[in-house]
Amino acid sequence: MTYSVAVSGASGYAGGEILRLLAQHPDVEITTVTAHSNAGDPLIAHQPHLRSLRHLELKPTSPEVLSGHDIVFLALPHGQSGQYTDALTNVGLVVDAGADHRLTSKDAWDQFYGGEFHTPWTYGVPELLVDGKKQRENLVGATRIAAPGCNASTVSLSLVPGIAAGVIKADDIVTVLAVGPSGAGKSLKTHLLASEMLGSASAYGVGGTHRHIPEIQQALRGAGAVDPRVSFTPVLVPMARGILATTTARIADGVTDAEIRAAWESAYGDEVFVNLLPEGVQPRISDVVGANTALMSVAIDRAAGRVIITAAVDNLAKGTAGAAIQSMNIALGLNETTALTVNGVAP
Amino acid sequence: MTYSVAVSGASGYAGGEILRLLAQHPDVEITTVTAHSNAGDPLIAHQPHLRSLRHLELKPTSPEVLSGHDIVFLALPHGQSGQYTDALTNVGLVVDAGADHRLTSKDAWDQFYGGEFHTPWTYGVPELLVDGKKQRENLVGATRIAAPGCNASTVSLSLVPGIAAGVIKADDIVTVLAVGPSGAGKSLKTHLLASEMLGSASAYGVGGTHRHIPEIQQALRGAGAVDPRVSFTPVLVPMARGILATTTARIADGVTDAEIRAAWESAYGDEVFVNLLPEGVQPRISDVVGANTALMSVAIDRAAGRVIITAAVDNLAKGTAGAAIQSMNIALGLNETTALTVNGVAP
Amino acid sequence: MTYSVAVSGASGYAGGEILRLLAQHPDVEITTVTAHSNAGDPLIAHQPHLRSLRHLELKPTSPEVLSGHDIVFLALPHGQSGQYTDALTNVGLVVDAGADHRLTSKDAWDQFYGGEFHTPWTYGVPELLVDGKKQRENLVGATRIAAPGCNASTVSLSLVPGIAAGVIKADDIVTVLAVGPSGAGKSLKTHLLASEMLGSASAYGVGGTHRHIPEIQQALRGAGAVDPRVSFTPVLVPMARGILATTTARIADGVTDAEIRAAWESAYGDEVFVNLLPEGVQPRISDVVGANTALMSVAIDRAAGRVIITAAVDNLAKGTAGAAIQSMNIALGLNETTALTVNGVAP
Amino acid sequence: MTYSVAVSGASGYAGGEILRLLAQHPDVEITTVTAHSNAGDPLIAHQPHLRSLRHLELKPTSPEVLSGHDIVFLALPHGQSGQYTDALTNVGLVVDAGADHRLTSKDAWDQFYGGEFHTPWTYGVPELLVDGKKQRENLVGATRIAAPGCNASTVSLSLVPGIAAGVIKADDIVTVLAVGPSGAGKSLKTHLLASEMLGSASAYGVGGTHRHIPEIQQALRGAGAVDPRVSFTPVLVPMARGILATTTARIADGVTDAEIRAAWESAYGDEVFVNLLPEGVQPRISDVVGANTALMSVAIDRAAGRVIITAAVDNLAKGTAGAAIQSMNIALGLNETTALTVNGVAP
Repeated sequence: MTYSVAVSGASGYAGGEILRLLAQHPDVEITTVTAHSNAGDPLIAHQPHLRSLRHLELKPTSPEVLSGHDIVFLALPHGQSGQYTDALTNVGLVVDAGADHRLTSKDAWDQFYGGEFHTPWTYGVPELLVDGKKQRENLVGATRIAAPGCNASTVSLSLVPGIAAGVIKADDIVTVLAVGPSGAGKSLKTHLLASEMLGSASAYGVGGTHRHIPEIQQALRGAGAVDPRVSFTPVLVPMARGILATTTARIADGVTDAEIRAAWESAYGDEVFVNLLPEGVQPRISDVVGANTALMSVAIDRAAGRVIITAAVDNLAKGTAGAAIQSMNIALGLNETTALTVNGVAP
Repeated sequence: MTYSVAVSGASGYAGGEILRLLAQHPDVEITTVTAHSNAGDPLIAHQPHLRSLRHLELKPTSPEVLSGHDIVFLALPHGQSGQYTDALTNVGLVVDAGADHRLTSKDAWDQFYGGEFHTPWTYGVPELLVDGKKQRENLVGATRIAAPGCNASTVSLSLVPGIAAGVIKADDIVTVLAVGPSGAGKSLKTHLLASEMLGSASAYGVGGTHRHIPEIQQALRGAGAVDPRVSFTPVLVPMARGILATTTARIADGVTDAEIRAAWESAYGDEVFVNLLPEGVQPRISDVVGANTALMSVAIDRAAGRVIITAAVDNLAKGTAGAAIQSMNIALGLNETTALTVNGVAP
Repeated sequence: MTYSVAVSGASGYAGGEILRLLAQHPDVEITTVTAHSNAGDPLIAHQPHLRSLRHLELKPTSPEVLSGHDIVFLALPHGQSGQYTDALTNVGLVVDAGADHRLTSKDAWDQFYGGEFHTPWTYGVPELLVDGKKQRENLVGATRIAAPGCNASTVSLSLVPGIAAGVIKADDIVTVLAVGPSGAGKSLKTHLLASEMLGSASAYGVGGTHRHIPEIQQALRGAGAVDPRVSFTPVLVPMARGILATTTARIADGVTDAEIRAAWESAYGDEVFVNLLPEGVQPRISDVVGANTALMSVAIDRAAGRVIITAAVDNLAKGTAGAAIQSMNIALGLNETTALTVNGVAP
Repeated sequence: MTYSVAVSGASGYAGGEILRLLAQHPDVEITTVTAHSNAGDPLIAHQPHLRSLRHLELKPTSPEVLSGHDIVFLALPHGQSGQYTDALTNVGLVVDAGADHRLTSKDAWDQFYGGEFHTPWTYGVPELLVDGKKQRENLVGATRIAAPGCNASTVSLSLVPGIAAGVIKADDIVTVLAVGPSGAGKSLKTHLLASEMLGSASAYGVGGTHRHIPEIQQALRGAGAVDPRVSFTPVLVPMARGILATTTARIADGVTDAEIRAAWESAYGDEVFVNLLPEGVQPRISDVVGANTALMSVAIDRAAGRVIITAAVDNLAKGTAGAAIQSMNIALGLNETTALTVNGVAP
């Protein structure tokens, strides 16, 4: 069968990437695209790279417009998807690319987001180890899916194998991420101008305020961490897409180097989209651009007493839209890899 | 008086930046520029931006050519400056931009560099707190100066105020640096090609192998740290110049936020070239491009138990050539700021 | 049936892109990849983004290794493919991404390339109007195909509709192209270093020396031009991929604006991969990154007496590998669009 | 004496660059900085790279605030400086970085700008040949100066020597410029976002609509051209600063290559800031970043019948602020080069 799909927030970057991937999916038909202030425009006016979808027109984002599709993707600013949840009762599968349904802790929501708290949905990171099994299993048959935060899933995938295997400690994690501006969306802000970013770099959300911190902590708890502490600093750098996360954690007492590497090897050895690179090989952003791939390298620094996990992810693809569609495939019982590529567009 | 100056390694990036700054220095005359394989070429063939020096020709780098100048700058690959040291007895001031004379520990040299160990020279970071005073004092009248490693001085300047004041611990430092490729020099290596770096990012020297680690540890010991441990990861990002270092250290027990900030305020409050930004303001690379300025922001993350110091430095300017010339100014009793600017070239 | 394929020059950029596209082609099996100095290495060591092909090892490029495949792609430096031509008699289809078999004029070859002249093969630009029909028709059943020069095909596709329709003159064409460095290949040259290119731009091959000029003139003659004159200047800019060509030609006497636009509309109105944008809409490189799409805009400047055609093409995709595979599809009677996308990876 | 200076539009890019240069000018004191919507903020909030001016606060832009200074720089959007002109009667020197006082032809103003036409002021391009002499001569003692459009002065300086010497024709000029986004100012527009520009390029103002066209034509008439025709296309590329202009003109009948080169050599042989490069050497943007230098190369393509002049200029420096301050120096009888550098910041 062919599923009818509606994508809201279709004029933004996340919505655009969802559409780019769906456009090559043989089992779906993109029936409806919606936007807020851009409603009424042709989609191609805002997504000029989506040539194959130039027949589509942006409708207003409303429960009425979204209702009745087999699948709805919500790619809306945080705090906005909640209002559609109740209204979309007749939609078989809803995938939210926003944060509204990610957190299980109302306290964490209140502290980092605020506003109304919404029921947590099934978290859309299939390769994540949760309570001893892959999250993939929880996604089978899911009808409401919360796609992950791009930074959060990158860091969680980096850490969880080591936490679950008990080879690293979760009490003093430090992660610094070189990130491209597309993660901030198509927002008209001075610091996101090309003139400001070309040849420059700067950190933001420094000092424990970034909203992806509780999402990482939630994933670490799912791997058995009791009181995970995470220092998290994103650094904006001049590449349109990508997250290069350098994540370090203290080595657990008495473990060998072989045991450390084995944790990641066993977690991801059979995965198509999350790959551990050979020792000494570092992932590059260009290896994953446009792909649903997370590449990872694990280094052990005994002098510093830390494991360093470097991970490269395309924030819009595997970080957001790819995770959403991979989760959709699993939920619907389709081939998990349909419409997703493992090869990046490089150079 | 006017000092005669020779610059070796003049066809490379560090040598080029030394020349760019010296070209606007009223007290020196650039008499000689030298190179290895490029000897015989006009300087302008390799440094086409140095229009005011287009009359100069590259001579071979040899003790004979360098001898007899008032000042010699060595901008040579690591391990090469040592051979000139003994021969330059008749040179009043030698400033080495390479690593050969930076480390005081032969063990550290053997572990991270190897080859012959050389006498340590006066370290060229004037604003660094060393044994309770600024390194500036040690530079007065110095005749042999070791300019710092760009990453090392950026991280050391970030940490030393907090270590010296006892508000942060040195036992578990983590630093991740977004760095531009010019720090790697004009080397013909595939991973430094524009095609490889544009739109991409990747880490290197991961896992405790980077040569700037012992240099940082040496600075931390100078601030009173007993057994400093440093996890250090540089990430190459697509900007020609710049280091955006995110450095975190554990908060010492019982200190207040005010005490923490006061450490950096008192260390740098009177400095021209090293500035602490107001709380919440983050430094950008473009603010320091071409300038001798290090900009720093201190954030306190009580949940993670860490102080996060972000610092922006132009690796070629304040990181290398600016530090070299600032140190020269001090050594010679000139105005410390001559030929150096505090304002970056932005956007 | 499944065709067995060998790709030579597989460690370079053009070879890598051919492999990236072939990896998603259902009708081919990539059996063999070859290289020169990198023979013996795993492919993934040189193409770390081609995750799905990490089982392949680079064999030496030799007639023996390439023989016996159904299809061979040659992605070799100019002047090197000729030596394989005679030896590959038992290969059904050979597609040369180099220049050796593009030019029909030995004089042009001698002037711009030199060395041995080789028989011209069927030119691999399906949408090009040649002698009143699309080149597509000539490609059906072809066994030897010369993929185009990326700049040449971009400019030729820009001009040919207007020349063929008689609405622009070919006697004084001026084209200036903003191009990314990947077109120059993975060559270790100083001017291609990231440090040199980030934040910079410069022209090369200025003054009528660029090797794509005779290829453009050949295409213009195919559209009826008698003595085409082309001023051609490429400008290297800091984007990994892409050609943004601004091509201008003098307006023919007495033609109306409607007649001018109609020339391009009728030439490309039915094409999947070459699209004329609506008046006033300009193509962007990011719209075509990774795609087999050429986007074009036609503007008319009556005050200057010129038509300006701007075109965006991914030099590695539609400019080289995409054209090669599209031509292969046609030659073999497969669906022309298999393994090729129309949507770019943006932002 | 020290001149008191006010800079309006001080929170924008042009205003920022004027301030960066003035900050190193020994003969001026920056007393007042003004802005429109940002009035009341500290200057450093909008120009964080201008560390030496962090004591200044933005005042509202009004005749009252600007009056009474020795020198006023207007860096306002086009069409806004006119309103201040009459009110600033007691200001010795006014330099307008906007377009309001550049054009001598009311018809051209009406066609390309519209709105009220203002008296033309002395044009601020000292090296431009106008009516057989350098514009420098007209600037001596000037009290009202119109700084040039950055693209316009780059193209005019490229062409005028050849036009004035009669070695090229002005009837069919084609110029295509690779330009950075800072020329568009700190405007919050989607196409100027980093996400949109990184890895991309696109043309704008195509087809004879760009406002710098009449300014170029005016300069060409000053060199003796009767009815200059100019096809002008700017292409936005991902570098923060810079204009790399490729300008071509038809070779005049019967002139030799030596005569052609001699035109530019004699025009610029004695100039400090406008340099002709040796044959075959191409200018790079990085050679002129932050500098008041225009670098130029002249190539002759006899097959195409055209001279190609490539020129590199920093749009904010020599293109705007540098030209403004150089003109100020001349007008006031100061050393023409004060506060201006010839060396770019590279790499």
